Amino acid sequence: MKNDPSQPTSRAADPNTPIGFIGTGVMGNGMAGHLLEAGHPVFVYTRTREKAESLVNRGARWAETPADMARHCQLVFTIVGFPADVEEVYFGEQGLLAAMQPDTILVDMTTSSPELAQRIAEAASENGGRALDAPVSGGDKGAREGTLSIMVGGDREAFDAVRPFFRLMGKNIVYQGGPGSGQHCKMCNQITIASTMVGLCEALAYAESSGLDPETVLQSISTGAAGSWALTHLAPKVLAGDFAPGFYVKHFIKDMSIAAGSAERLGLELPGLQVALERYRQLEARGYGDEGTQALFHLFKED
Amino acid sequence: MKNDPSQPTSRAADPNTPIGFIGTGVMGNGMAGHLLEAGHPVFVYTRTREKAESLVNRGARWAETPADMARHCQLVFTIVGFPADVEEVYFGEQGLLAAMQPDTILVDMTTSSPELAQRIAEAASENGGRALDAPVSGGDKGAREGTLSIMVGGDREAFDAVRPFFRLMGKNIVYQGGPGSGQHCKMCNQITIASTMVGLCEALAYAESSGLDPETVLQSISTGAAGSWALTHLAPKVLAGDFAPGFYVKHFIKDMSIAAGSAERLGLELPGLQVALERYRQLEARGYGDEGTQALFHLFKED
Repeated sequence: MKNDPSQPTSRAADPNTPIGFIGTGVMGNGMAGHLLEAGHPVFVYTRTREKAESLVNRGARWAETPADMARHCQLVFTIVGFPADVEEVYFGEQGLLAAMQPDTILVDMTTSSPELAQRIAEAASENGGRALDAPVSGGDKGAREGTLSIMVGGDREAFDAVRPFFRLMGKNIVYQGGPGSGQHCKMCNQITIASTMVGLCEALAYAESSGLDPETVLQSISTGAAGSWALTHLAPKVLAGDFAPGFYVKHFIKDMSIAAGSAERLGLELPGLQVALERYRQLEARGYGDEGTQALFHLFKED
Repeated sequence: MKNDPSQPTSRAADPNTPIGFIGTGVMGNGMAGHLLEAGHPVFVYTRTREKAESLVNRGARWAETPADMARHCQLVFTIVGFPADVEEVYFGEQGLLAAMQPDTILVDMTTSSPELAQRIAEAASENGGRALDAPVSGGDKGAREGTLSIMVGGDREAFDAVRPFFRLMGKNIVYQGGPGSGQHCKMCNQITIASTMVGLCEALAYAESSGLDPETVLQSISTGAAGSWALTHLAPKVLAGDFAPGFYVKHFIKDMSIAAGSAERLGLELPGLQVALERYRQLEARGYGDEGTQALFHLFKED
């Protein structure tokens, strides 16, 4: 890496650079906490101020708006809810982009649309800075324990500059390519999970309907060619009647909707994703949006 | 276990009992081989005699028909192709059932229909013996290495009697319940795999279409919540252009057809299984029936 302090790359990596963190929900709280623990000065902002209080108590400084934060920080991470929230945080009147200083790096870790990531990257570039899209997987547990998988798209030099900070938050940190590539990679992750969850719930429903003991079935099938993270970690929750969210149904629907829209633009027909998306929407319509993705099983039981 | 030699349970477990093995294809060859290696006298029969030759050279004795075998053996394993082949081997004119001695245990390890397994169990019982359905997973590798997962349905005592022989062929040996339960469990396995394969191929197709490097995508997604046996073992084969069969498309279609029919009888709607079955049938119609299940990717590439 370059040592010239006029280079944005080295400036952003400086441990004394104030870091901004927007969105201190279940994920952001753990992630911003790791930056604080590492001794970095951290500014926080989130829509509902109380959600940032524990971080403020640990030494984080409150920013009144994203724009306010952009005036203090040349490295800002964001992880908010929906693409509309990302739009507001970046393009809103009090958003990051209008107020950002030259050489700033903005990193959106929300799972959001690849096209929006590309628009942010362009706007950041026009303002003399850079942007990365860096969605994560690993859930609140991964965020808390600093073991997230982080899929990064955008400028390669900016990625190298931010990598030391990613290392505080995650373990499996992979550069996927230009702007939007992190989001596209996350879409691959969610497309894979979508059909896997359908298969898992169908198998458990079949097991029950055919009079088998589903736990005994899992003993036979979990460790072989049918095995998956979901079968190991979520199927036992289904059987225990535990539908508490590790990952919310409503957020999974958001992700699959983005993936479906993106696939359509790419001219790809993804029937498995369509089945999953339709089914999860039915599930949400029946009032299960705030349960975990394993709640899909409810639908197959009601059939 | 009981020691009274008049008990069928102990008679079948006797290491000197001649064992019959019908179906010496890719799977059966490895499995029957383990019985021979353990020193058991083994009779073999298969439709195409040459396929049994290596076993005969290793000391197995040739039976002219299933009925002939049933006259020599009170424990017979079968693993053939399709349910129609199972019908023939059991109910045919020269089949096992008509010729079986009392106290015989017949074990069908073919992946076949639960209803057929129940019919065989009834017929065996009427003839003074018992039958187990014991399909496997783990492929030719598992058969060769004796590491199969064996899912067993039928009489519990018969299972206990046969277990020492199952142990020669597999590692994960689980009793699932009464007649047909082994087949039902295998259907759960295949239902799980069906949607998992769809998700895997859709994700890889999306990765390519969106301009990502699919291998780099796998680095991000294989070890997290999207992870599966298929993603670890089959996705790299797809990317390497290796469509050689670990498990044949045509056999997977057979299994999914059985599962779909069985689900219908149970009044279950399984849309993920339907998508997979339709797609694999399209794949077979395009001439890919003799490739491995990872060949599903061809379809998504052609979209």
